[in-house]
Amino acid sequence: MLNEFSLIRRYFSRHKNSSDAAILSVGDDCALLAPTPGKVLAVSTDMLVEGRHFFAGADARALGHKTLAVNLSDLAAMGATPRAFTLALALPAIDEAWLADFSDGLYALAERAGCALIGGDTTKGPLTLCVTVFGDVDAHTALRRDAARDGDDIWISGTLGDARLALGALRDEWPLDAHALDAARRAMDQPEPRLALGAALAGVAHAALDISDGLAGDLMHILERSDMSARVDLDALPRSTLLARQPADIQRLCTAAGGDDYELCFTAPVDARARIEDAGARAGVRVTRVGTITAFNAEAHANAGAARLVWTDGRGQPVTPALRGFDHFND
Amino acid sequence: MLNEFSLIRRYFSRHKNSSDAAILSVGDDCALLAPTPGKVLAVSTDMLVEGRHFFAGADARALGHKTLAVNLSDLAAMGATPRAFTLALALPAIDEAWLADFSDGLYALAERAGCALIGGDTTKGPLTLCVTVFGDVDAHTALRRDAARDGDDIWISGTLGDARLALGALRDEWPLDAHALDAARRAMDQPEPRLALGAALAGVAHAALDISDGLAGDLMHILERSDMSARVDLDALPRSTLLARQPADIQRLCTAAGGDDYELCFTAPVDARARIEDAGARAGVRVTRVGTITAFNAEAHANAGAARLVWTDGRGQPVTPALRGFDHFND
Repeated sequence: MLNEFSLIRRYFSRHKNSSDAAILSVGDDCALLAPTPGKVLAVSTDMLVEGRHFFAGADARALGHKTLAVNLSDLAAMGATPRAFTLALALPAIDEAWLADFSDGLYALAERAGCALIGGDTTKGPLTLCVTVFGDVDAHTALRRDAARDGDDIWISGTLGDARLALGALRDEWPLDAHALDAARRAMDQPEPRLALGAALAGVAHAALDISDGLAGDLMHILERSDMSARVDLDALPRSTLLARQPADIQRLCTAAGGDDYELCFTAPVDARARIEDAGARAGVRVTRVGTITAFNAEAHANAGAARLVWTDGRGQPVTPALRGFDHFND
Repeated sequence: MLNEFSLIRRYFSRHKNSSDAAILSVGDDCALLAPTPGKVLAVSTDMLVEGRHFFAGADARALGHKTLAVNLSDLAAMGATPRAFTLALALPAIDEAWLADFSDGLYALAERAGCALIGGDTTKGPLTLCVTVFGDVDAHTALRRDAARDGDDIWISGTLGDARLALGALRDEWPLDAHALDAARRAMDQPEPRLALGAALAGVAHAALDISDGLAGDLMHILERSDMSARVDLDALPRSTLLARQPADIQRLCTAAGGDDYELCFTAPVDARARIEDAGARAGVRVTRVGTITAFNAEAHANAGAARLVWTDGRGQPVTPALRGFDHFND
């Protein structure tokens, strides 16, 4: 049986790319890391728990991909370029086939993203994965949540809702044929962090975040931190042809409040539209305008309960869909 | 009931010291952080799992302290100065009294160490705590594991074994009266990261690490990475008066192979003895010489099974105590 140290060595020291990113890497008390001159480090951490963020028995290779992808997505949302990551994992037992597949999925994305494993921790416990990721970013052009301005367009990358469509089918909330479920499940299991788009938006867009808990809840973070309001066209939210074939109420729920999308939601001035379209084209990612940032009227909000986030239909008429964000404690 | 976001805000945004350490902190997709000019960032991550690293029902305030302390100890072992940390936690339920106590213990140490919470993640799941910690260090004087040299003294900070003494009593491996258990348990629950000592040793000592899994196993990491051997005097290992009153075999097990000590083990040239003693005095921490680094004889090792790490008694005679390190998968 492998002990803890040989386990770490065998599965997480195979690739030597870590030496390119860090001065000192896996195997010491700390890794040593510095941002590229002129940049600062963007740092984010996410924890994934079995039964909460993924099903028990989830495919290990896909899980390796997703564990890193959700963290890289946070870098994309800042406009940062990946440099390195640490991985802490609790495993119920040492399963070498699982470890081989998990590390394959993890490293495939890490190498594609230029992101080196520089340290970690392994322990016994309920299956839990915690990644902390580091990227280079220019502190002056980083895409912050508090930077949305009155009149900005609101944009969404890619399409929304396929992951929620798969989750609902797996939870028996709605029917979905096997072929459609398979396609939707790929979106849930293999999200693609929008790194090239995020980097291209730095210095062009104003505010940005990645949609992990559903647009309705996540956009509110931009609005609250920027002290702005917004109007968003529910019917304009980009969706796959697969989702567009589902009933209208499922489409609205999945696009506006589905979690696990890992697309970018960002705001940009109207005169940047051509540059945004160009950034999307260069990154190979569709970008769609879905609404407008407006000034926040604190008085109307306090006196009349006016919402910060107003949903409209395709004709600009306000609608009040039954939506809620994905809350890890309340759903 | 608090939702995830208000929970994070209430308990982990109380203190505003984070703005001093980071350009951008809790509440965006990423925190933005840069090392102090001329330094690099030392980065370490540790995951603590209930039932593995602490008992179910452990005092929340002590747990808050220990969660950060074990990470700060890794910074101390590099000679780094704390700057910031992220915290990811999985909680089985929202228990406000627990959160208040946990965050009290965490922040008390964080503020004392000058280490700011700059980001995190909260989710539902089996109680699991994952901290990633960042410190400033000079890349040229950082205390690495691969820097031990032939003839170096081997030093230990503080005393070893009290945490293991408490654990053994709690596991019914040996008897311990209530008063002694209480004192030993404080060592287990409230380890003090040797930050001032570690910083004073940078540029003076050669190799260092913190003893988390027991000296026997941890010293081997220095020996293997430095390609050296060592002789260590079992009877010279520093121990508390409490442990010194226990049977000899328990003393040896606890000092040489006890986990959870978080003292520093470091090597330094003989001509640095006065500076080491001075560093200990200034940091208010006892430092004890316990052995010597020697050249590794690969041939003797291969042909005769000569051990890298030779234990001796107080008269220099080799002894072979029944010791083993603390392995998170095998114990």
